[in-house]
Amino acid sequence: MSDPLIAPERARQFTPAERRALYDVINARRDVRNEFLPDPIAPDMLRRVLEAAHAAPSVGFMQPWNFILIRNAARRQAVHAAFAEANAEAQAMFDGEKRNKYAGLKLEGILKSPLNIAVTCDRSRGGKVVLGRTHNRDMDLYSTVCAVQNLWLAARAEGLGVGWVSIFRQEDLRGLLSLPDTVEVVAYLCVGHIDECFTQPELQARGWRHKLSLDDLIMDDHWQSNAPVERDV
Amino acid sequence: MSDPLIAPERARQFTPAERRALYDVINARRDVRNEFLPDPIAPDMLRRVLEAAHAAPSVGFMQPWNFILIRNAARRQAVHAAFAEANAEAQAMFDGEKRNKYAGLKLEGILKSPLNIAVTCDRSRGGKVVLGRTHNRDMDLYSTVCAVQNLWLAARAEGLGVGWVSIFRQEDLRGLLSLPDTVEVVAYLCVGHIDECFTQPELQARGWRHKLSLDDLIMDDHWQSNAPVERDV
Repeated sequence: MSDPLIAPERARQFTPAERRALYDVINARRDVRNEFLPDPIAPDMLRRVLEAAHAAPSVGFMQPWNFILIRNAARRQAVHAAFAEANAEAQAMFDGEKRNKYAGLKLEGILKSPLNIAVTCDRSRGGKVVLGRTHNRDMDLYSTVCAVQNLWLAARAEGLGVGWVSIFRQEDLRGLLSLPDTVEVVAYLCVGHIDECFTQPELQARGWRHKLSLDDLIMDDHWQSNAPVERDV
Repeated sequence: MSDPLIAPERARQFTPAERRALYDVINARRDVRNEFLPDPIAPDMLRRVLEAAHAAPSVGFMQPWNFILIRNAARRQAVHAAFAEANAEAQAMFDGEKRNKYAGLKLEGILKSPLNIAVTCDRSRGGKVVLGRTHNRDMDLYSTVCAVQNLWLAARAEGLGVGWVSIFRQEDLRGLLSLPDTVEVVAYLCVGHIDECFTQPELQARGWRHKLSLDDLIMDDHWQSNAPVERDV
């Protein structure tokens, strides 16, 4: 702690225009399912996006992530078949009107996007005891999600769309990607160029669920049991 | 799906300068423990940061997050005491040299930062069946982590530092924040203005663990069992 060479430096300041750029990317980011163009992604652009992911925070500097780049059409066909099976199970869980609405939603772009990225978490990386993960074993999964969110924002700034497909039986993906036991898929992403994009979350635009008021989500000091959002369930 | 009013629009394009701003924020973001200044955070600045969090993606548009703003010194003292107990347990898990090094690290800014934010996930929000969460129950936790990462980046662009404290027994935080059974703390964050900041991850600067090469983390098509990073464990 006392080594004078190990010390913080003057913090980078950001201008109002730079802040605006960040907020614009955050607000323009969407979960894309149907707007993918077939054009391949230039290697340098993909590299920048993956570098952004790799700059994410990680518990104990564990960097537990890997990025499996899936372009092969046969493998994407197999992944799509696994999605279709799980999605049929999912659809059956909804009742009546909601089930019909669910059936009408397009929820993935596995085949339409030219690139799929499986972002994985190697739960054994860093050894048995990882700083910061001693009391919450899932911190490595959370670190991997931070990498996904960085990737998503970088992709949007590059003109790429990203869609996160979560409707899989985990064991199906594990088999299709030959994952060892210590590795989990945290996010299966569809990635490709887009010309068009929804301006609000697609599930909001399609009336699936409304946007909550931020005011109802902020609490002072401790949980407020009369929070208005509770009644939204 | 056929309603012509529900359609994507021309996607916002970002300039090279805007992309640069995003990448600079991503690369300047640090986990801050010790550089917090006591100055309060202006309400409009805090609002922008929380709006960025609330613009995160969420499974089934569930928006499962809440933001508990903890300024009260007595409550922060109690949270700090809970951290100290857990951290003593954590320290005992490391052996020899590593334990001494661990003991010398400052891992939180609970009392030094003027604001703590508990970002929670309400696992019951959105009802029993949530679109996209049918096959992975933890997607709501992952959505909440996306909100944390948005918050973290926005804070950095505003000149604020953020530190994520994960060394708690979950039941301690649950009691201190009066959380109902359906709500989990995903991230306990320390937030405050900073003048100085590490230019690389602090655990890297202090020699705890080295940065992995991105090349070793990228795989084509499926898991490669001879991946070089495996040997880093």
